[in-house]
Amino acid sequence: MTRGNFNKCLQSATSWTRSNTVHGLQRQQSLLKQAGRARPIAIIRQQTAAASNIPYDSARRQQSAKGLKRRAVITAVVVAAATLTCATRREVHAEAPPKEPDKGERLIRLSEIHEHGRNAEKFWVFKGDRVYDITDWVPNHPGGEVILRAAGGDIGVYWDIFTIHKKQEVYDVLEQYFIGRLDPQDLVDGKPPSEHVDDPFSTDPERDKALIVRSSRPMNAETPASSLQTYLTPVNTFYVRNHLWVPDLGNGDGYRLTVEMIDGEEKQYSMNDLREKFKQHTITATLQCSGNRRAHMTAGSRQTNGLQWDVGAIGTAEWTGVRLRDVLIDAGLDVMNLDEDVQHAQFAGAEAYGASIPVDKAIDPRGDVLLAFEMNGQPLPRDHGFPLRVLVPGHVAARSVKWVNKITMSGEESTSQWQRRDYKCFGPNEGSNPDWDSARAIQEMPVQSAITNVRQVPQDRLNNSKLAQVYGLEEDAIILEGYAFSGGGREIVRVDISADDGRTWRQAQLIENDEKGAKAWSWKQWRIALPRREAMRYFCVKAVDEAYNTQPESFEAHYNFRGNLASGWHRVPVPKSTD
Amino acid sequence: MTRGNFNKCLQSATSWTRSNTVHGLQRQQSLLKQAGRARPIAIIRQQTAAASNIPYDSARRQQSAKGLKRRAVITAVVVAAATLTCATRREVHAEAPPKEPDKGERLIRLSEIHEHGRNAEKFWVFKGDRVYDITDWVPNHPGGEVILRAAGGDIGVYWDIFTIHKKQEVYDVLEQYFIGRLDPQDLVDGKPPSEHVDDPFSTDPERDKALIVRSSRPMNAETPASSLQTYLTPVNTFYVRNHLWVPDLGNGDGYRLTVEMIDGEEKQYSMNDLREKFKQHTITATLQCSGNRRAHMTAGSRQTNGLQWDVGAIGTAEWTGVRLRDVLIDAGLDVMNLDEDVQHAQFAGAEAYGASIPVDKAIDPRGDVLLAFEMNGQPLPRDHGFPLRVLVPGHVAARSVKWVNKITMSGEESTSQWQRRDYKCFGPNEGSNPDWDSARAIQEMPVQSAITNVRQVPQDRLNNSKLAQVYGLEEDAIILEGYAFSGGGREIVRVDISADDGRTWRQAQLIENDEKGAKAWSWKQWRIALPRREAMRYFCVKAVDEAYNTQPESFEAHYNFRGNLASGWHRVPVPKSTD
Repeated sequence: MTRGNFNKCLQSATSWTRSNTVHGLQRQQSLLKQAGRARPIAIIRQQTAAASNIPYDSARRQQSAKGLKRRAVITAVVVAAATLTCATRREVHAEAPPKEPDKGERLIRLSEIHEHGRNAEKFWVFKGDRVYDITDWVPNHPGGEVILRAAGGDIGVYWDIFTIHKKQEVYDVLEQYFIGRLDPQDLVDGKPPSEHVDDPFSTDPERDKALIVRSSRPMNAETPASSLQTYLTPVNTFYVRNHLWVPDLGNGDGYRLTVEMIDGEEKQYSMNDLREKFKQHTITATLQCSGNRRAHMTAGSRQTNGLQWDVGAIGTAEWTGVRLRDVLIDAGLDVMNLDEDVQHAQFAGAEAYGASIPVDKAIDPRGDVLLAFEMNGQPLPRDHGFPLRVLVPGHVAARSVKWVNKITMSGEESTSQWQRRDYKCFGPNEGSNPDWDSARAIQEMPVQSAITNVRQVPQDRLNNSKLAQVYGLEEDAIILEGYAFSGGGREIVRVDISADDGRTWRQAQLIENDEKGAKAWSWKQWRIALPRREAMRYFCVKAVDEAYNTQPESFEAHYNFRGNLASGWHRVPVPKSTD
Repeated sequence: MTRGNFNKCLQSATSWTRSNTVHGLQRQQSLLKQAGRARPIAIIRQQTAAASNIPYDSARRQQSAKGLKRRAVITAVVVAAATLTCATRREVHAEAPPKEPDKGERLIRLSEIHEHGRNAEKFWVFKGDRVYDITDWVPNHPGGEVILRAAGGDIGVYWDIFTIHKKQEVYDVLEQYFIGRLDPQDLVDGKPPSEHVDDPFSTDPERDKALIVRSSRPMNAETPASSLQTYLTPVNTFYVRNHLWVPDLGNGDGYRLTVEMIDGEEKQYSMNDLREKFKQHTITATLQCSGNRRAHMTAGSRQTNGLQWDVGAIGTAEWTGVRLRDVLIDAGLDVMNLDEDVQHAQFAGAEAYGASIPVDKAIDPRGDVLLAFEMNGQPLPRDHGFPLRVLVPGHVAARSVKWVNKITMSGEESTSQWQRRDYKCFGPNEGSNPDWDSARAIQEMPVQSAITNVRQVPQDRLNNSKLAQVYGLEEDAIILEGYAFSGGGREIVRVDISADDGRTWRQAQLIENDEKGAKAWSWKQWRIALPRREAMRYFCVKAVDEAYNTQPESFEAHYNFRGNLASGWHRVPVPKSTD
């Protein structure tokens, strides 16, 4: 399969909602009805144009020629990452050896598998010489219906690309659907016939070796502890959270941003248009993944589905760009007399990711939502959205869509997987297949804090420690450092540290910095020096924001199976004395 | 002392900051310097005019004639309530009997006491025949410097008015400063000479007997449980939180609201002006005292200072009025190009209360700040601010100033006691005399919830219970009801109930209502029916708002000596079986 073919597959994938919960289906049908269509339609992706060197305009027209009404374009997207967001352990690169066929196992011809493709009633796939009927799994697939791309063929070639599947729990899921073996007549040299799909990850950028990799395809990697100590996180070690591959958009010259109003009117902008037509703004803002500290929830409560981030799925940068509000006004949005039908600003990324934010945030002059093209004074790196990303300060990073090429004003949230399923929280009473529509998409984040550094300073080295001087300590000391952050621009007003597992508290010193923007969009770093003798088993940290919200003590009561927004007190064991 | 004299005393009282912390003093000095003055000045109060039947304009001119520059008017206020906010137990109406003089006790002449008035270096007062030097107490007096009104004379007459002082812990404080006895030569019929000040509480309105009174002078009373079950709280049983007396402003015809810009320009509005000149808006909003549930913090942690509210220092109403934003624009505020010096909108009430909010909230079109004159479709009752109050939805009720007669745009927060000292939170590490300036004034409130009703429904009565039908219960049941609320217009998105003290949780049903306004300014009421057999020792409730903030499990870690914003899970014992 060529890259063109791969992309074609992606183009024709449908919204995840197609055959999901009753609610989702109803909403989808309602959306389609509104759009005057009988069934989900293919999405239009600028990636296609970029990959095949067809100017985006021209690709767009070709699609239009196929009778697609502009308004009807469903921005919900190809969900290619499959169990991507369901990764729970390190990738397993060695697979289990093939089992010997049992007597009585059904032998299945390749031609019969081909008949169970995406348009069939039952969906079959094979992996090695084992054949599976995955029909019942499709509605539960965390990555949505993209799994149907593999229906009727070899699922293994997709897993070779999306290596995040290469773990035992995914193999275990597949084995539940085993129905038989490939007929030996169809084996070539004793092996199943090889298929090939191009690897979209092959053009991913090089990364700094200091990043702590949690999955490599797609790339998900934490900011290392050393880079959590500065107010602005270095660009090269700023955490990377990719849902898919990194689109290769050349030097950005051919890049176009399309902005669509609710009446279907569109306007396009090149990078030059954006730079020259609008006033540029610079803000400092923290981006944090909803899964930051997920590993702590797993450890503090029980198993959660998702990348097991420690404290480093967070970073702060200075972002430069133009205001989304200004661009929307230019594209025709009447922000002073907003059409009541306009409720959300939907964003689509060139790699197929999608998300949305409420329109009130999008047009709030004090909301500081940017279309950003610089990070810490440099052009955006490819991993962070080159040439253009949305930057929604105070909201979960999942709304700051990278490589954004389409903005659609709508009465609906983005229909993407990442808006309607992932990036929600459920409760401790709900299992792993909840009523997805019953929960609110995460936008603003709750108050959060973490300890990122613990240093022992023996009494005889105190004179060398500025911090120890600040705190006037004259005995063996421990210095703690960390960050605290809250959503919605709510400033952190205090950070409390306990050296005795929460019985008593001291206030940490908050470090002031050169924050830019209408509200407190950035983390507050903090530090404290404690007498060594006070330190019992665990240090704890908790923060308070300006609305006086604070963090829960533990994880049990806000446990959710996706492990989102883990914000229980961060506990770190007291290090053994260096004496 | 006549009422006129009483008011004159109040007029000449100075801002609480005068001799407080170094920071407060510096800020006060800076403010005075800015205003071109050498020392704090008297405040101008419409109450004066109202009480003495002098038209407000004319009173204002008389003051001006004394050389007061408009800009320099310090809106910080007479703080008459003394330990008002420090009330911790029920009022004690019977005082301890006078002690017999000890031999060797100093005898002090009345004339000598008179020499230790407010302009002296040492401040003396007497109560009965006992004399006290309260100099060292003045900086610690929770009510601020108004205590100096009693200097040189009888403090008892003030306590007869502000009866909140009539409790043992206040007597104990006073006794620490005992210096001697009144000389018998000055006793008349064996008693100290009588003084008299008018009782401003004598014209307080009648109240509904169902209100749960926590202090009577000033009146502080909770919404009774029966009135917490409806979405809109009945006006007559809506909780009352008065810091002072209720001003008697007749039918409101003579009432004037003065709005002062930062350059000193003023504009005045009658009630008719407000009603006729501006578009009227109606919103639903919950008001909650920062001390709601303080009694739970005291019980769950340790002693807190303040009225020991249970779950009823909260209520929801439909408020009608005009937008503060519209009035500010009319009065000359350029909201589109806001002067950077304008940071706060200060409000002063006719009884001498004062507070402020950030200007961004004041002018936010989606902030819904009203100057309200109706509550649930009726004219504001006197207890709730007749004829006009500020209504700051999503913020602590202390900012919704009642009987508002002055709005001042300023670079500073209100200098009142209630902005700069009370209505802040400190931490568990801080004692009862913290660095007041180090904490942020409470504005938006954190997420909160409470159980307001627990009902047992035996199996044989289930058929009569609509709720039990809803939940499909077929056995002995317990029905719980309550409210949940969060600040800043952040909607409550889930309420979790535990019947086993927090080990497992069920989701309560949220009751939708006809909310009015740009954001979720009102509480969400909730209900749940549980099988009786599941109920262990305690029920717990916790809520989650749309920013996914949640409540702390207990009170120890957010304990603060003032007991503000007590938001630990609300625990209610499981009732004994009715079998």
